[in-house]
Amino acid sequence: MTIFAIIGHLAATTGGFNLNDMPGGAGRMDVLCRSVNTALFLSHDLRRDVTVYLVLLGGTDAPKTIMFSGEKVRSLNPDERSAGALVKKALEIPVGEEFRESTRGVYVRRGGLSRLLGEHTFAVLDEGGEDIASVTSFPEAFLLSDHMDFTPEELDLTCDCPRYCVGPKILHADHTITVLLNILDRRNAGQ
Amino acid sequence: MTIFAIIGHLAATTGGFNLNDMPGGAGRMDVLCRSVNTALFLSHDLRRDVTVYLVLLGGTDAPKTIMFSGEKVRSLNPDERSAGALVKKALEIPVGEEFRESTRGVYVRRGGLSRLLGEHTFAVLDEGGEDIASVTSFPEAFLLSDHMDFTPEELDLTCDCPRYCVGPKILHADHTITVLLNILDRRNAGQ
Repeated sequence: MTIFAIIGHLAATTGGFNLNDMPGGAGRMDVLCRSVNTALFLSHDLRRDVTVYLVLLGGTDAPKTIMFSGEKVRSLNPDERSAGALVKKALEIPVGEEFRESTRGVYVRRGGLSRLLGEHTFAVLDEGGEDIASVTSFPEAFLLSDHMDFTPEELDLTCDCPRYCVGPKILHADHTITVLLNILDRRNAGQ
Repeated sequence: MTIFAIIGHLAATTGGFNLNDMPGGAGRMDVLCRSVNTALFLSHDLRRDVTVYLVLLGGTDAPKTIMFSGEKVRSLNPDERSAGALVKKALEIPVGEEFRESTRGVYVRRGGLSRLLGEHTFAVLDEGGEDIASVTSFPEAFLLSDHMDFTPEELDLTCDCPRYCVGPKILHADHTITVLLNILDRRNAGQ
């Protein structure tokens, strides 16, 4: 199992946003949708052993966390609107402290990063970290930020996590996930 | 300079398509838009040394080729709709045999793969190729297919090109571009 959590600092927490304006009105929800895509899609297949958490911190009903299970998700296509439509449905249902399924394989609950950090062992993917090519053993979960830097509070919460970067250039969160999964694919295949 | 060309076997060649239905009515234009994203975007920057060709083969006005110049493009955001809107504008202008600029850094002309193959030295990125990790010298240009396999005619046109894969899993075209650029970034940085 590989887990990714992406923090959406401005991302909508109610379902009223417009799928035609995910970068604007939905608080850069496009970044999170592309991250769902890169974490879960293979060519003509899904990565059934990957789970994605979207930590949504924007709007009046924050924080909420949406979980996409690669094992169970259905009705997900690679385009941004497809993931966005599933996020929108998840944000339209009544939500409590425990995960509730909104569509097949997609779940939503209240709460944010601090709760996730107590549930999984995370590394942080960030430009200032150690080059992942030289890391021999990874934790099960990887934390990324959207288009914004981690806040001082988030840095404080994750101060004990190892920090890795994926190369000499600073990449978008979704591109970073692709590079990391390629490294894991190669190691799992003994390459 | 690094060049990517992605063949859109069903991709629209007229500008009448709906940005809300790029996977369907526009012939998987979403794949091509994500490929523009992964080829050109760094975090808070663009890859100014990358050029992307989209070879559009769908509809009644095929073939057409759209070129995105990383050096010159403006008004491009990372979301699929942003690249899609620039493609749509390119397909709405009268087009001839030579590239004509439709918006800043975006150009369109008639013609397809065979013409491109005469202009650049290509490698093909395809699942059956040699693992790119073991390749020591790359050509300037890389050819990918969208969600469909290369046709027999395309395979014939590219039979003299080297063929590379990017790892043990079969990836989408846009993810393949991300992995390849990471390898080039690392080599350019001496890693």
